[in-house]
Amino acid sequence: MEGEQQVKNIGVPQNVIASLQPDAQVEVELVHVFDKMKSVKAFILDVDGVLTNNDLLITESGEFLRKMNVRDGQAIKWAIQAGFKFGIITGGVSEGVKKRLTGFGIEEYYSGIVDKLVAFQAFKDRTGLAATEICYMGDDLPDLPVLRKVSLSCCPSDAVPEVKAVCDYVTVNQGGGGCVREVVESVMKLQGKWPAL
Amino acid sequence: MEGEQQVKNIGVPQNVIASLQPDAQVEVELVHVFDKMKSVKAFILDVDGVLTNNDLLITESGEFLRKMNVRDGQAIKWAIQAGFKFGIITGGVSEGVKKRLTGFGIEEYYSGIVDKLVAFQAFKDRTGLAATEICYMGDDLPDLPVLRKVSLSCCPSDAVPEVKAVCDYVTVNQGGGGCVREVVESVMKLQGKWPAL
Amino acid sequence: MEGEQQVKNIGVPQNVIASLQPDAQVEVELVHVFDKMKSVKAFILDVDGVLTNNDLLITESGEFLRKMNVRDGQAIKWAIQAGFKFGIITGGVSEGVKKRLTGFGIEEYYSGIVDKLVAFQAFKDRTGLAATEICYMGDDLPDLPVLRKVSLSCCPSDAVPEVKAVCDYVTVNQGGGGCVREVVESVMKLQGKWPAL
Amino acid sequence: MEGEQQVKNIGVPQNVIASLQPDAQVEVELVHVFDKMKSVKAFILDVDGVLTNNDLLITESGEFLRKMNVRDGQAIKWAIQAGFKFGIITGGVSEGVKKRLTGFGIEEYYSGIVDKLVAFQAFKDRTGLAATEICYMGDDLPDLPVLRKVSLSCCPSDAVPEVKAVCDYVTVNQGGGGCVREVVESVMKLQGKWPAL
Repeated sequence: MEGEQQVKNIGVPQNVIASLQPDAQVEVELVHVFDKMKSVKAFILDVDGVLTNNDLLITESGEFLRKMNVRDGQAIKWAIQAGFKFGIITGGVSEGVKKRLTGFGIEEYYSGIVDKLVAFQAFKDRTGLAATEICYMGDDLPDLPVLRKVSLSCCPSDAVPEVKAVCDYVTVNQGGGGCVREVVESVMKLQGKWPAL
Repeated sequence: MEGEQQVKNIGVPQNVIASLQPDAQVEVELVHVFDKMKSVKAFILDVDGVLTNNDLLITESGEFLRKMNVRDGQAIKWAIQAGFKFGIITGGVSEGVKKRLTGFGIEEYYSGIVDKLVAFQAFKDRTGLAATEICYMGDDLPDLPVLRKVSLSCCPSDAVPEVKAVCDYVTVNQGGGGCVREVVESVMKLQGKWPAL
Repeated sequence: MEGEQQVKNIGVPQNVIASLQPDAQVEVELVHVFDKMKSVKAFILDVDGVLTNNDLLITESGEFLRKMNVRDGQAIKWAIQAGFKFGIITGGVSEGVKKRLTGFGIEEYYSGIVDKLVAFQAFKDRTGLAATEICYMGDDLPDLPVLRKVSLSCCPSDAVPEVKAVCDYVTVNQGGGGCVREVVESVMKLQGKWPAL
Repeated sequence: MEGEQQVKNIGVPQNVIASLQPDAQVEVELVHVFDKMKSVKAFILDVDGVLTNNDLLITESGEFLRKMNVRDGQAIKWAIQAGFKFGIITGGVSEGVKKRLTGFGIEEYYSGIVDKLVAFQAFKDRTGLAATEICYMGDDLPDLPVLRKVSLSCCPSDAVPEVKAVCDYVTVNQGGGGCVREVVESVMKLQGKWPAL
């Protein structure tokens, strides 16, 4: 009861609370996830299924188009202005996606990656950040090795069951449907860094 | 009871009534919103999340495609024929969107805007209209400053919670799914200007 | 009871029956709509909102892409093979849509049309068909004048209320989601012309 | 009861069980479908409605874009690595789709096909596989002749009723929404070949 009171006082959005798994020790668990959120200094994101909804539009000449979300982009811009670091680790390759994401100021961009742990290690080496300061968001089996390493592991509501089973925070929103905005907004609100307009 | 009777008599669509927030003084509030609707002479619209569903389709070369709604466009054309003025205030930049919207006869087009209040002021100066004659529709935090200024503030059903909290009229339809048609049609029906076919 | 028996015997799909408006004289009404369906020799279709879902994808240079349904196209091909005539009456203009539809063998293609009755009259003059032999499908106000003239008036489930109110057959499917297949299949099954595979 | 126990022990996903038709002899039927799944050495897939959601995006110049699913592609890659053979039999023609699918290592690609049985026979001749070793997935009437020949017949949840009526396995997912991943994953899990990460 007191735990719940505390949660309300720090302004955590209802959807964060709603998405947490029921648990015998629910109040302890809640505080723990919020502790993880408070320590986040960087976000690493998968592309397909996280920043997109897993669709690929294919032209007759074999070009791919991906669907991304304006509000995800808005949240990334605000987070970078507030001092957060961002990384992208994706198995796919798209110059257009790279152009959009690096245009926000994302400096660590790893594409065409088979083993995501290698790119994750490179991200840590180059930024000097510890795994406890990193939030990773992925949706499919190749994301599992990194999800198991980071402090705050997140996935969209339509991630595969194996991924949902290991994540701290399953968003209400789906991949490409604002799941990145949801995580970034939750973390920034907890840290008092979300813009007031 | 009599208030409800009156509402029915002036031909207000059921979805307008349904979307209004429950209120202790519901009949007074209803009349108030309809008064606002009756005084509208101009519509100012955000693009992403209002005229689109917040999706961006991204090609491999980094071009963006946006999804707009045929019925929204139809309503804008009818409203312009009936004498309403339109403005666009958007943070994004797209020659294609500009071409489509100015092609309807929209003369006030402000893109790449960071501070929407500045563009709003420019719209008022150039048209000579007062804030009480303007309906604004937006979906995200950057729209809040203008939404607080206008007489009739509107947003789609999938706007962010902070925006829904300040709006007079939350549409039944989502961004890119006919929310602009819904507002324009409601206002024009109330003013007796909707086309009869 | 006997009416229902008869309906089942002639192999009418359940969705046709489900979509018919409840009516005090329901059995008489059913037979009536089926009589209309049996007399159909030609289909005239609107494009946006019927063969598409009312979305327009807009490129940065202002090109439009429209979303059409493979099964609608399949049904049109089978109907033309079975001897039905097709016409298109659309307010929009798209060489790509025209190319796809005339590629099926649709000979009467009217685009950029403001007054749909004029195109409807031209279709009748050129084909020699009577209004009682024509099925028209539309979704918005500009379709109303023709919908009131034809024998069998159809619309998708997401047509505007004014259109749904005047139609004989409101499909289960939405515009761009197989509504044309549904009408063509229902008519061809009633006439015993649907392909058996 | 014992049948159900057995099913759980071999690790069959719940959605496979859920999708099977209720049956007086349900336990026998379950074992039968799993026996079919265990014997699969090759998958033959339709494109439109299976690897896509039946949408065609049409440009103004008449080019078509199709929407495919990243997770379907991931599953095909893993299955080919595990030794499964794949074939595509489609009525449509798209160099882009062909490029993507053959890029995964799919060697048997039949496009522009009117009679799917002819292509099916060619696939068997060229691979030396028997119908009892082949899983076919389709969604519309032209797929029926092949669906009736193969050992394991599959379709997405939004296939036409005539197709669903003859299939062993109707997936939970829709065409273009992961239905291929679902079938391939189910078969590979039953055979102990799904990757562990």
